[in-house]
Amino acid sequence: MEQEQHPHPLKNRLYVIIFGTHTSAGRAFDIGLLIAILTSLCIVVAQSVPEIQLAYGVPLHYIELGLTGLFTIEYLVRLYCSPKPFAYARSYYGVVDLLAILPTYIAPFVPGASYMVVIRMLRIMRIFRILRLVGYLQDSNLLLRSLLMARRKVFIFFSTVGILVTIFGSLIYVIEGPEHGFTSIPKSIYWAIVTITTVGYGDIVPQTGLGKTIASLTMLLGYSILAVPTGIITAELNNEMKSHRQLVKCPNCSKSGHETEAMFCKYCGSELADPDQRVVPVETSDK
Amino acid sequence: MEQEQHPHPLKNRLYVIIFGTHTSAGRAFDIGLLIAILTSLCIVVAQSVPEIQLAYGVPLHYIELGLTGLFTIEYLVRLYCSPKPFAYARSYYGVVDLLAILPTYIAPFVPGASYMVVIRMLRIMRIFRILRLVGYLQDSNLLLRSLLMARRKVFIFFSTVGILVTIFGSLIYVIEGPEHGFTSIPKSIYWAIVTITTVGYGDIVPQTGLGKTIASLTMLLGYSILAVPTGIITAELNNEMKSHRQLVKCPNCSKSGHETEAMFCKYCGSELADPDQRVVPVETSDK
Amino acid sequence: MEQEQHPHPLKNRLYVIIFGTHTSAGRAFDIGLLIAILTSLCIVVAQSVPEIQLAYGVPLHYIELGLTGLFTIEYLVRLYCSPKPFAYARSYYGVVDLLAILPTYIAPFVPGASYMVVIRMLRIMRIFRILRLVGYLQDSNLLLRSLLMARRKVFIFFSTVGILVTIFGSLIYVIEGPEHGFTSIPKSIYWAIVTITTVGYGDIVPQTGLGKTIASLTMLLGYSILAVPTGIITAELNNEMKSHRQLVKCPNCSKSGHETEAMFCKYCGSELADPDQRVVPVETSDK
Amino acid sequence: MEQEQHPHPLKNRLYVIIFGTHTSAGRAFDIGLLIAILTSLCIVVAQSVPEIQLAYGVPLHYIELGLTGLFTIEYLVRLYCSPKPFAYARSYYGVVDLLAILPTYIAPFVPGASYMVVIRMLRIMRIFRILRLVGYLQDSNLLLRSLLMARRKVFIFFSTVGILVTIFGSLIYVIEGPEHGFTSIPKSIYWAIVTITTVGYGDIVPQTGLGKTIASLTMLLGYSILAVPTGIITAELNNEMKSHRQLVKCPNCSKSGHETEAMFCKYCGSELADPDQRVVPVETSDK
Repeated sequence: MEQEQHPHPLKNRLYVIIFGTHTSAGRAFDIGLLIAILTSLCIVVAQSVPEIQLAYGVPLHYIELGLTGLFTIEYLVRLYCSPKPFAYARSYYGVVDLLAILPTYIAPFVPGASYMVVIRMLRIMRIFRILRLVGYLQDSNLLLRSLLMARRKVFIFFSTVGILVTIFGSLIYVIEGPEHGFTSIPKSIYWAIVTITTVGYGDIVPQTGLGKTIASLTMLLGYSILAVPTGIITAELNNEMKSHRQLVKCPNCSKSGHETEAMFCKYCGSELADPDQRVVPVETSDK
Repeated sequence: MEQEQHPHPLKNRLYVIIFGTHTSAGRAFDIGLLIAILTSLCIVVAQSVPEIQLAYGVPLHYIELGLTGLFTIEYLVRLYCSPKPFAYARSYYGVVDLLAILPTYIAPFVPGASYMVVIRMLRIMRIFRILRLVGYLQDSNLLLRSLLMARRKVFIFFSTVGILVTIFGSLIYVIEGPEHGFTSIPKSIYWAIVTITTVGYGDIVPQTGLGKTIASLTMLLGYSILAVPTGIITAELNNEMKSHRQLVKCPNCSKSGHETEAMFCKYCGSELADPDQRVVPVETSDK
Repeated sequence: MEQEQHPHPLKNRLYVIIFGTHTSAGRAFDIGLLIAILTSLCIVVAQSVPEIQLAYGVPLHYIELGLTGLFTIEYLVRLYCSPKPFAYARSYYGVVDLLAILPTYIAPFVPGASYMVVIRMLRIMRIFRILRLVGYLQDSNLLLRSLLMARRKVFIFFSTVGILVTIFGSLIYVIEGPEHGFTSIPKSIYWAIVTITTVGYGDIVPQTGLGKTIASLTMLLGYSILAVPTGIITAELNNEMKSHRQLVKCPNCSKSGHETEAMFCKYCGSELADPDQRVVPVETSDK
Repeated sequence: MEQEQHPHPLKNRLYVIIFGTHTSAGRAFDIGLLIAILTSLCIVVAQSVPEIQLAYGVPLHYIELGLTGLFTIEYLVRLYCSPKPFAYARSYYGVVDLLAILPTYIAPFVPGASYMVVIRMLRIMRIFRILRLVGYLQDSNLLLRSLLMARRKVFIFFSTVGILVTIFGSLIYVIEGPEHGFTSIPKSIYWAIVTITTVGYGDIVPQTGLGKTIASLTMLLGYSILAVPTGIITAELNNEMKSHRQLVKCPNCSKSGHETEAMFCKYCGSELADPDQRVVPVETSDK
């Protein structure tokens, strides 16, 4: 978030408030926006319940229109005060912000467009901005880095699961057949996923002895390969936490190995850097 | 549990017995109280079974009345002997102790009040006091500290799960719709929670091909993100156990790194401090 | 298994074959016994299938009688050759060996006694003896020691789960009530266990909105506290594997830290002790 | 993959392209083959859906015939250019390649042979070859070695689970009996597997109080022993990752302990060996 000097002081001030999180006005704006987004989401959720829609449909509709109006103004102000409006409009949040307000405007003309309101759900991703406000950024980065380090192993794991459900799905299709509910291979693969992840809806179940044996194998396999991603994430997290401790150095005696939440050096007692400044954060670019 | 001197010797003795756990009388009182609480819970549970209520309803009712009487006396004695009666009355256990005896008294006047007896369930929390009696306090503190250290990461994890179930719930609502049982977004979010936690009741299941694909994604996601909290807790526990070993020092040669249950220094053979005294316990305040 | 000298050479030889595992005759006896036990189990399982019982009921019955006869002879020989027959008869395996042959003898006199044949299932515990034969004893001991070290933490975990299912079971009983299938608190606790362990049969499910909210909480809780036992076992296993490596010392250069399956010292190349002799095994006493 | 000199230059060139992965032509061939295999799999899956079979059955059948023709040519060329044709024909991939093309040829003569097309599923195992192309070999080897190191512990774990489901299955069969759906011990063991792995289809559920108690025990047991394989895999992975770091040495200063993905020595800055060359890979023999 570079603090470059704008020629217009108004644009500059708006930019700091709307895009920044370091001033108190910027924080207040972010919190207000989050409350507005959550309220708008709750209304969308409430409108889908027939009883609520019948009783409070009209007032809810007006609150929703009002919030959409506010979001429209916010979108236009963001476009106005951003130093690079096109870069914002093409960014992830720029597209989501536009898609979040469109459905309400085109709903009267296109039937079924009101369903597109669910796109607004993607706006709650902004809730992760709040992590920066409450100082949870460091732990969030630790988790992200661990997942990033493990991405190759997780990819291999998911390929293996994909191949297993294809093989077991095809097997059960041949064994049980359409007369027991396994009407096609895609449906049988769906059954294999339901079984290997230990969800077990019970909407399609094997009926023959051989089918039950295959199902038992699938369950035991799913039950035990669950250990693999857990092992991967744990090992990476362990690694990250250790190397992170190595990174935190006391500015006075330069000894490392301090606890994540330590505020003072345990060897010489001098104050350590603010935990949230210690590591260069993986910023989710916002412009 | 400071052992401050009371002016009245009776009050003092009662206080040591009822609130303390270090004298043999205090231990006997705690064990007796736990048996009474468990008996009273079993009666509440048994009374809810229609067959038992029909056959033994009357004697069970009298035993319950008797136990409630005992709990009332216990509550009054606690108020009497506590050096700060108001502090006790406003504490967690003070409120629970009162709420546990009230329902029986107001049941004849307020219909349905007997259901409030389930508040008595909260009294079984006192069972954790027994941990101090059997020397399990240290392990209990280790687990608590690990969970406390991991609280930020667990919060981030639950926020992510919350956002995921909202998005998947809304998606499946739009795709499947009320005609396949997904009558509202809250109900669809309930389905998403049932699926992502791999519970899989099977009371609502997707019927269309697209819905099944979304469901499969939800399952695979739920199956693999389960690895994240496990990784977090394991890494923290590992950390805690290591730093705990570091803390235990031999009083003779002052070398550290002893096993949790070691009684003697493995370097010089001199006796180590009692395991349960080694770490300052995270006391669940009782007054 | 002390090799004390018996006065009768026959008794002595029988003792070494039947109770020992170190001679080739003793190993052959153990493997033969295991095959006989597994065959007898397969027959019990097969007899419970109506189609098989109808077609092969008579020959299966005769094979079963023959095997029971063999087991009876084995039991009597064990009693005869054991230096302390009463100690054997009162030991775990002594009681199981007797209970495994009794049902067949009392079945003609006591109706329903044939069901007691399932006690024979306990005999398959002897399969763990084979671990000693195939050299898996060391890994089996490592797992056992880890579980033993973790027993206090696992006890605390199960107490917490017990309290949680009691509280959630009582809550759902009050909220949903008998009209939605929650006919008593024990049945509601059963539902809470089905839900918190993420099994999710779907035979009893909440119908009201509040009930579904409580169910969602139970699921999310169950989903995440599963992380706790995993973390405990992993941390203990990690610990055990590390301290085990410390224990294995090269007899030549006395450096430690060798891999579990290493046969030669990685520092000086001299042969290490046989892996299965390295640690004093936690023998499951057999006399 | 020894690069031995063939007398025929054509045979030699074909061998390098078809069996090798180190030339760009060899990589192109592998990727083309993978696309052909995946297309053929998608057609088999699509043909099993009645709606698709009705609408596009004929064109799909001709594409399938064409692909089978290509696979036949590929199989014959492999036989021709392999220095040891019989060794290839008897290898895992040689048998799978033959079985993958046979069903289409014998389908007109043997009814039901078209079902054998599912054997073609086994060809997707070749997808793991692509790991070598995208540089994921190292992580794949790390996972494989961890599983290999843990094989003894996993075997002990599965033996324990096998004994537990036999005991619980027999118990529930005796308690619930055929009138509640538990018609035989094998079916009851299937129920025990469904329950202990927390799948919970709900097709067979206990009806009596005692049966529900046994079921609750099975669930809690299954829920917590899941911790054991996870602990095993995590501990082994941790071990492997540590010893792997030890193996990577800087060719300049010969210090070890570099991150898996490090490209330069963190002590002297000189370039490290290519990550995929660092460890001798566990090749899945292809000839």
